[in-house]
Amino acid sequence: MRRLPEKQVHDRAALDRVLDAALVGHVAVVDDGQPYVLPVAVARDGDRLLLHGSTASRLFRALAAGAPTCLTVTLVDGLVLARSQFESSMHYRSAMVLGRCTVLEGEEKERALLVLTEHVMPGRTADARAAAPKELRATTVLALPLVEWSLKVADGPPDDAEDDLDRPVWAGTVPLQRTWGVPVPAPDLRVEAPVPGYVSSWPSDRG
Amino acid sequence: MRRLPEKQVHDRAALDRVLDAALVGHVAVVDDGQPYVLPVAVARDGDRLLLHGSTASRLFRALAAGAPTCLTVTLVDGLVLARSQFESSMHYRSAMVLGRCTVLEGEEKERALLVLTEHVMPGRTADARAAAPKELRATTVLALPLVEWSLKVADGPPDDAEDDLDRPVWAGTVPLQRTWGVPVPAPDLRVEAPVPGYVSSWPSDRG
Repeated sequence: MRRLPEKQVHDRAALDRVLDAALVGHVAVVDDGQPYVLPVAVARDGDRLLLHGSTASRLFRALAAGAPTCLTVTLVDGLVLARSQFESSMHYRSAMVLGRCTVLEGEEKERALLVLTEHVMPGRTADARAAAPKELRATTVLALPLVEWSLKVADGPPDDAEDDLDRPVWAGTVPLQRTWGVPVPAPDLRVEAPVPGYVSSWPSDRG
Repeated sequence: MRRLPEKQVHDRAALDRVLDAALVGHVAVVDDGQPYVLPVAVARDGDRLLLHGSTASRLFRALAAGAPTCLTVTLVDGLVLARSQFESSMHYRSAMVLGRCTVLEGEEKERALLVLTEHVMPGRTADARAAAPKELRATTVLALPLVEWSLKVADGPPDDAEDDLDRPVWAGTVPLQRTWGVPVPAPDLRVEAPVPGYVSSWPSDRG
């Protein structure tokens, strides 16, 4: 599990595909030398990542103030079972973005929230009520530019040393798949509404 | 998507269940004020988390030197489709561990590598060759104590305001499930070995 046979990918379109599949990322905030890593919903909006949090969050306020940060998105796609434990590893795609966030306000903020909802739940903005003024005030919306980034992808077969190839064991990869399960209606659902059609058309490779 | 109706969980057994389901975590390293967030394979070993990396990695060397760090594990379990976008959110389990890593050496290091492989690929240490001395020297193995930690779990139904309950839209949750796919043999497989039985008994809730 030690050495990941990953490759650096420099293709911006590949970065966008990884970010567009992601529901959450992990963002770092440093407070007095102590780093914190927080899971956040993310959405790509052209050449930037959008994220949002409560205005009451101390760590989110630090991000809003422009502290240097790092936001990493990782999708684990499977396991690589090599003949040696050293070469055993994972299939994954991981995007790392460095930079400083800026705060979005006004119409740009409202639009960014719609982008976030549509990214995570495609189709949902047609049904779910948009943010009211009080809700907008309780929310900080940030943008992190896609300028300084790196993308690593590991998707190959086991890469065993020649000496290990005659070991009498199976080797290969085991995919890890993500799919949407059966929707569960809210216990307080008052209307005779079917599950929306957009839910059944969501792509399965999200995570 | 803004306010997550999460709850803090203080139950150590619940922490262990989340960590034991995790294949990867995101660990922070701060270098000259700039944080980096790296995906790493993790395994719980009693009251500590194990992680490992290349001795050549500058960021891993900073962790090995005892820099304050944070390692966060997040499993996204579904989406919560509320009547308002503000109350829409995710089901997730997220464990955050703060502290400083210590370096494992000798027999303890070798045992930790077996624990890591068994955690990620249960059963595999019976088949895959353990690390050779040269491989051990290329690997740094770290332990992060489970002393300062927090666990957040969001798993409830939509929590809409009374005013929104009569909106004529479906509301509920959509589970996100992780399952193992069909194993893919290595192209250079030389032996007539079946897919090992332990692979088909892996629990599906890993991520």
